Amino acid sequence: MLDIALVHYPVYNKNHEIIGSAVTNLDLHDLARAGRTYGVGAVYIVTPFADQQELVKEIVGHWQDGYGAQYNKDRKEALTVIEICTDLDELFERVTKARQGRPTILATCASCQDKMVSFQDVRGAVEKKENVLLLFGTAWGLTEQVFTMVDGTLPPIIGSGDYNHLSVRSAVAIMLDRILGTRD
Amino acid sequence: MLDIALVHYPVYNKNHEIIGSAVTNLDLHDLARAGRTYGVGAVYIVTPFADQQELVKEIVGHWQDGYGAQYNKDRKEALTVIEICTDLDELFERVTKARQGRPTILATCASCQDKMVSFQDVRGAVEKKENVLLLFGTAWGLTEQVFTMVDGTLPPIIGSGDYNHLSVRSAVAIMLDRILGTRD
Repeated sequence: MLDIALVHYPVYNKNHEIIGSAVTNLDLHDLARAGRTYGVGAVYIVTPFADQQELVKEIVGHWQDGYGAQYNKDRKEALTVIEICTDLDELFERVTKARQGRPTILATCASCQDKMVSFQDVRGAVEKKENVLLLFGTAWGLTEQVFTMVDGTLPPIIGSGDYNHLSVRSAVAIMLDRILGTRD
Repeated sequence: MLDIALVHYPVYNKNHEIIGSAVTNLDLHDLARAGRTYGVGAVYIVTPFADQQELVKEIVGHWQDGYGAQYNKDRKEALTVIEICTDLDELFERVTKARQGRPTILATCASCQDKMVSFQDVRGAVEKKENVLLLFGTAWGLTEQVFTMVDGTLPPIIGSGDYNHLSVRSAVAIMLDRILGTRD
């Protein structure tokens, strides 16, 4: 089973300072819809800020129980995959409990890192029913500290040249397709 | 060369009525960043509404010449790929002129259609320097009329089951990766 987490702390800002970023409404929708389409277990939203956790609950609640649930049943269904976590320790604990064993934890990044594993490897692991947790950073990406906490790193998504500044929404979609998508 | 277009008219609303949809700020950013990462020629935003065209110009202008240009040079670079068109006729004319010949025009959809071509075929065509234009619909998708105007249709993105309600931002990212991405 593949689980994914969108991490709002600790991440870098553009000046390479460690910050907690704000939750973006469309991140929740796009990750939930992609997660549900590709059959991920859960999409964890990691933020230590109580007001941001409240915001996530309000957004999900609107589409689960509020007007949104009537308006768009597909969206209601997608948002069931969203879970909220305070920090990475809680995330790792909860996924370990849900999957009855610690998953392989992999970070993603826009530039090369150590401990690289291929998309093909992760695809194979998930096909063999192994549990994998993917971490995605918001803002200018996961901090170096996070990379010391994980088992490996997925390669950056390289396009046609030296520009690879995808939104996290795009990066999640592409990586889910590489790991779980059908191949024509 | 691959060009892509995000179509706001004619598309369906949830009641299968033909409408013009509103431009979404993050669509411009995500499509521009994905387009620039994968080396597409241009990202055309198709809308007949003058106020919506003005909105696109304001957003692009903010990141090209305004405060955004100072704040984030990567974003400035990405948004150079955005072009504005009034309707599909103008789109087809402008791409034909830019590519010195009519491209193969393909529609995308979330359910099966006639005239299906595979991602592999499109990948091969672009590698052979042929010109391809991909149309993406907003809201509940491109109308039937649009499918009569195109040369073919890309397959819907199927995940693990019967749920395939991706955002257009995710669909664009995945399709660009399937057609132009490196393979590990």
